[in-house]
Amino acid sequence: MGDTKYIKGFSKLSKEAKIEWLVQEYFNDSEQALATLKTYWNEDAKLQKLHDEFIENTLTNFYLPFGIAPNFLINGKNYTVPMSIEESSVVAAAAKSANFWYNKGGFKAEVLSMVKIGHVHFLWEGENKAELKKLITDINSKFYEATSQVTENMRKRGGGILSIELVDKTSDIPNYYQLEARFDTCDSMGANFINTCLEKFADVLKEEVAKSNLSPAEIEVVMCILSNYTPESLVRSEVRTPIAQMVEGTDIAPEAFAERFTTAVKIAETQPYRAVTHNKGIMNGIDSVIIASGNDFRAVEACAHAYAARNGSYQSLTHADMSDGEFRFWIEVPMSLGTVGGITTLHPMVKFGLEMMGHPGAEELMQVAASVGLAQNFSALRSLTTTGIQKGHMKMHLLNILNQLEATEDEKQTIVKYFINHTPHHAEVVSAFKRLRGGEVLK
Amino acid sequence: MGDTKYIKGFSKLSKEAKIEWLVQEYFNDSEQALATLKTYWNEDAKLQKLHDEFIENTLTNFYLPFGIAPNFLINGKNYTVPMSIEESSVVAAAAKSANFWYNKGGFKAEVLSMVKIGHVHFLWEGENKAELKKLITDINSKFYEATSQVTENMRKRGGGILSIELVDKTSDIPNYYQLEARFDTCDSMGANFINTCLEKFADVLKEEVAKSNLSPAEIEVVMCILSNYTPESLVRSEVRTPIAQMVEGTDIAPEAFAERFTTAVKIAETQPYRAVTHNKGIMNGIDSVIIASGNDFRAVEACAHAYAARNGSYQSLTHADMSDGEFRFWIEVPMSLGTVGGITTLHPMVKFGLEMMGHPGAEELMQVAASVGLAQNFSALRSLTTTGIQKGHMKMHLLNILNQLEATEDEKQTIVKYFINHTPHHAEVVSAFKRLRGGEVLK
Repeated sequence: MGDTKYIKGFSKLSKEAKIEWLVQEYFNDSEQALATLKTYWNEDAKLQKLHDEFIENTLTNFYLPFGIAPNFLINGKNYTVPMSIEESSVVAAAAKSANFWYNKGGFKAEVLSMVKIGHVHFLWEGENKAELKKLITDINSKFYEATSQVTENMRKRGGGILSIELVDKTSDIPNYYQLEARFDTCDSMGANFINTCLEKFADVLKEEVAKSNLSPAEIEVVMCILSNYTPESLVRSEVRTPIAQMVEGTDIAPEAFAERFTTAVKIAETQPYRAVTHNKGIMNGIDSVIIASGNDFRAVEACAHAYAARNGSYQSLTHADMSDGEFRFWIEVPMSLGTVGGITTLHPMVKFGLEMMGHPGAEELMQVAASVGLAQNFSALRSLTTTGIQKGHMKMHLLNILNQLEATEDEKQTIVKYFINHTPHHAEVVSAFKRLRGGEVLK
Repeated sequence: MGDTKYIKGFSKLSKEAKIEWLVQEYFNDSEQALATLKTYWNEDAKLQKLHDEFIENTLTNFYLPFGIAPNFLINGKNYTVPMSIEESSVVAAAAKSANFWYNKGGFKAEVLSMVKIGHVHFLWEGENKAELKKLITDINSKFYEATSQVTENMRKRGGGILSIELVDKTSDIPNYYQLEARFDTCDSMGANFINTCLEKFADVLKEEVAKSNLSPAEIEVVMCILSNYTPESLVRSEVRTPIAQMVEGTDIAPEAFAERFTTAVKIAETQPYRAVTHNKGIMNGIDSVIIASGNDFRAVEACAHAYAARNGSYQSLTHADMSDGEFRFWIEVPMSLGTVGGITTLHPMVKFGLEMMGHPGAEELMQVAASVGLAQNFSALRSLTTTGIQKGHMKMHLLNILNQLEATEDEKQTIVKYFINHTPHHAEVVSAFKRLRGGEVLK
């Protein structure tokens, strides 16, 4: 094709050969590019190999900051929460909110349910649906038998398959049915477990249909797959306080603050444009914990946002009310987490994070993650409805700009102080920096 | 409170003091915990400081693997795409799909629109809505004037404020209105820019209302904030091929494969339980690029999923059809990305990733990210509808389990080979490993 950049059999190359090819093909200064990659290698070759093998074609490590938020009082236990995230102000906001709620009783969290779901999606061209349904009922135990080895350990831990039933979806797509199975996967996220079970269910189903009197005695399995939508794996966290204690350190009165805060939540409950940003902020907090605990943030994101849209219109995951002089603020969000399996026992910083939290099970981790999400949202709405979001956010943004300008520590301090009372735009920071460098005294 | 774990003024402590407190308070073996944190520090203290300052309370680096997927032919240009993700099989799936489509013309991607949006959310208790509306029209130019310094650079680059108008939302919440502004933020994601503009708009609005004849001549600003929902910042990517070329390397015929694949997409279009998982897989690909390019994956996730739910029911972001002997598969997804500003010019691996892609602007990066999402979905559906998801997925999962068991390279090779034709459950891998260690010859 005359395309020098096309490469065959790339995945089979050694890491060194992959890197060599990449830096030669895509970088003007290939030595510099190589040096950058190597800068991020861990000195410990064995540890580096462990990290390399998490995925394919790994060249080096991408650093996310690992930060912590102390003073999270959740169900009476004091957590210092591990958070991995690239965005400034997320950890600061969580910590500030944790502090605010600490002496108001903290967060009360509970897991409402812990059910996962998966489907064998299949096509059957027959007319007699009742017979198909009867067959599935008749062979139900065979699904359990065929997976008894796979489910053995899970059953020992108190989990396993909860139910298996036929769902008729022929009104959506001609001839389309689901074998819908519900699972309890205990402290594991359970994706591999569920998918393995489902593939075995599909084998059983095909065999049994073939042996049956159904007409036709044949199904086409389209796919077997767990659902990342787990509305029945649901956690709730709540904070509450007498409104008089909603003191903010600003000039806004407690009652007015609680009122405006509640209005801001109502806006997110009714306006999708606002709800998306509102929930995005919640997920800043939740994802930080999800990543640091070795869980899959794409699964958690997809589930949370689909849940936010469950009533036909995209809405806030948090809610607030004021009654009898009390302010209440809560979140209800489904998520499917694991504290065993996956990379939870492989990634040393994940192990570190889980140890910090006292080796929580999946339910406890759900409670922590939901509480951090609620805390995050509280901080965001507090800033938004009082001083505005930019003030706090820009403080960290400012440091990033100043690092980019290679400002000295002294210069950083001066400029941070200079912008203490207003929100600088990027250009204003650069201008102030240049003036400072030019000898001007910033006031 | 008698809570020894409560700590005051934590954020003001030095990194060393924070760590000292944490390891003493939360770890049985505090020396080991300290050593783990230090293992992940970069040798280069200045570089480490840069990464520490991205967020607050940073203790160390959390490694995400940085991998690459070569052979992405997008609009005729060959990309090797940087991908940061912890989940095995994502990079492999992207690379495999890129290869499949390479000699079929690759991905055709286009940005359909590039508009961002933000709101001043406010309350006004007056009756005469027409007068409020007239005021906003009359003072429209003042919003532009008040932000002329802030928007100067953006205007030079061809962007800026596109429109500012009043939206009456009093039917949702009493007295509630929005000042809705649309922006073009060029190659920056634009969050700070938009929020800074909005806060200035709010100041103008408050002042002008106070000076006006409105009754009351007063508004209450609830908050000023951009929306992460950007349905008007939309990208599309597509692949197409004669169905006869849909050859899979399995025993399934091209026509049957295309048919079953299209059915799988239809299922994701109609079944929210499937759509969530389907889109989650798409986001595996997209987020990998988002992270490696220094963008904010929570913003991209929230926007994509809200878009998936825009019709009142949560649906697939990809679509497929077969007509005139041709198979077409495409994605349409909104996202708001930046290739300047934020950490894009600060994080050395982000700079590396952007250089690899030839320093794309925001539109080009949207095209790459959407194409990787489509590629990911193609691989997932191909596996799901042919061999099943577990086979490919478990290969990497297997390596993780074997690493955990501290298997030697020889043992790894033997066991991978042993499981080549079926999907092992965790327990089966452990059993095979133990038997191998026990001297058994695995066949």
